[in-house]
Amino acid sequence: MVRILFSAPPGLWAEYRAPLTRALDEAGIKAEIVTGTGDPAAIDYVVFAPGGGLSDFTPFTGAKAVLSLWAGVETVVGNPTLTQPLCRMVDAGLEEGMVEWVTGHVLRHHLGFDRDICATEPHWDQRVPPLARDRTVAVLGLGALGRACAEALAALRFRVLGWSRNPRAVPGIDCHHGAEGLRPVLEQAGIVVLLLPRTPETEGLIDAERLSWLPEGAVLLNPGRGALIDEAAVLAALDAGRLGHATLDVFRTEPLPPDHPFWRHPRVTVTPHVASETRPASAARVIAENVRRAEAGEPLLFRVDRARGY
Amino acid sequence: MVRILFSAPPGLWAEYRAPLTRALDEAGIKAEIVTGTGDPAAIDYVVFAPGGGLSDFTPFTGAKAVLSLWAGVETVVGNPTLTQPLCRMVDAGLEEGMVEWVTGHVLRHHLGFDRDICATEPHWDQRVPPLARDRTVAVLGLGALGRACAEALAALRFRVLGWSRNPRAVPGIDCHHGAEGLRPVLEQAGIVVLLLPRTPETEGLIDAERLSWLPEGAVLLNPGRGALIDEAAVLAALDAGRLGHATLDVFRTEPLPPDHPFWRHPRVTVTPHVASETRPASAARVIAENVRRAEAGEPLLFRVDRARGY
Repeated sequence: MVRILFSAPPGLWAEYRAPLTRALDEAGIKAEIVTGTGDPAAIDYVVFAPGGGLSDFTPFTGAKAVLSLWAGVETVVGNPTLTQPLCRMVDAGLEEGMVEWVTGHVLRHHLGFDRDICATEPHWDQRVPPLARDRTVAVLGLGALGRACAEALAALRFRVLGWSRNPRAVPGIDCHHGAEGLRPVLEQAGIVVLLLPRTPETEGLIDAERLSWLPEGAVLLNPGRGALIDEAAVLAALDAGRLGHATLDVFRTEPLPPDHPFWRHPRVTVTPHVASETRPASAARVIAENVRRAEAGEPLLFRVDRARGY
Repeated sequence: MVRILFSAPPGLWAEYRAPLTRALDEAGIKAEIVTGTGDPAAIDYVVFAPGGGLSDFTPFTGAKAVLSLWAGVETVVGNPTLTQPLCRMVDAGLEEGMVEWVTGHVLRHHLGFDRDICATEPHWDQRVPPLARDRTVAVLGLGALGRACAEALAALRFRVLGWSRNPRAVPGIDCHHGAEGLRPVLEQAGIVVLLLPRTPETEGLIDAERLSWLPEGAVLLNPGRGALIDEAAVLAALDAGRLGHATLDVFRTEPLPPDHPFWRHPRVTVTPHVASETRPASAARVIAENVRRAEAGEPLLFRVDRARGY
């Protein structure tokens, strides 16, 4: 029997209790999870997020690891009382969730779902959409998320163009790069997906000029960073018909203010920053896997290098 | 220069002209396509659909093949004047289109798109859906279309259960079969996809009893055959909350009559039999490939066996 302390803000326990219990069970770990300290010396593992009241790790003399619920450990890595091995969270759910959101919204626009989903009157209008192989999707940004999305779209037979600042090669994807590589990509794109990081170079990248390169009626998906787009230029392109639709998950100000024009524009869909979020179910599996590894004497996943700080 | 007669109802020429020209060009065929007969003896290939006025193939003495635009050739296969090789249409677009429709609507329901797509008021409600790996999708019917859909969903990491009347094995899919195999599949299914053929055994398969086996709030997708479901039982299950939503592409009567309750039910989406349709773009590629084969002296694809009738 392994004893685990779950130390995190109170709301998280409600979210993690069932997934963590299930994940430990599936990993073959017999565990007791407690949320109060009781006898700290009896605790084998600490599952940790800041804000749960724990700041002194000294009494956990028997703890084999401190397992962070968050990817960022900058607030705890320098704690001098934390001498136990510390692991950060690397949640496969972030990438998988992004692939699902992007693939789902690309298929939605590709197949023209909205007309049927939001219909309130009978309408038997058999316009057959083109096949994915006859639709070009541009993925801007070819980091881990962009590559995963590009590959998932290519597996569904979309014609996928990739663009990144520096040269990248992704099997099956027609990759372009650099300032001069962007225009030919946008000129062919029926659907554009923004998965670039926010940097001084990408801030406001999708402006009036870049939007003017798109084919008439193209669709813009932004699950990347709110600052990648020039909001006024996007609204103007929608009103001019240059853009057929914009589906946006991230914004310069979040939550998106209730009076923002995106909310009520007929050709804008707002999703409330849900494309890629840490999920208790997948995060719990990472915790359980690390407990299993420690119990089996195997190396821990995502162990923090204190000198490097992450 | 190859001379092709396109003989089909007039509306089809408008749909096929550009895709056929492009497909022939991509296949490296220099062709002239005509829609009037002119000198029948000069025609090399006849692209054919019933309803274009052509019923006597005798004058086409130089024709190397008659290439049907439709999969079904039952109205022409017995024509005694048709002595040229006859090929039916096998359009990869049928399967690809079905995979796109099913994958898109599964992702839509899995991620809860409707709330955001049809919203008319600001709503920043960050409910994060589970990952695909934590969602179970049941595919009923494991023929070519069912298998292709099951595999595409599994590639997106959905947990996929398959069910068929007779035992089938699909790599990566947990396959069940027979009358006794259906209940355990439906009991686990968050989303059910119907891709069964219409037979006396499948007629009305999804009835009140089978619907009662589903988890509360399950979603039903029917891109298969309208007769697979008991419509009254589906409406009752929706009203009782047993079914969370039904997205239906096929109906016992098509077009679906304007007074049918499916049209206005808040938790039914009607799509007008578009999940799987022959597409000019992909059908044109099949035509072009057969012209290329005939010109190169290679065997024709999908050549009809007149004795068998298909």
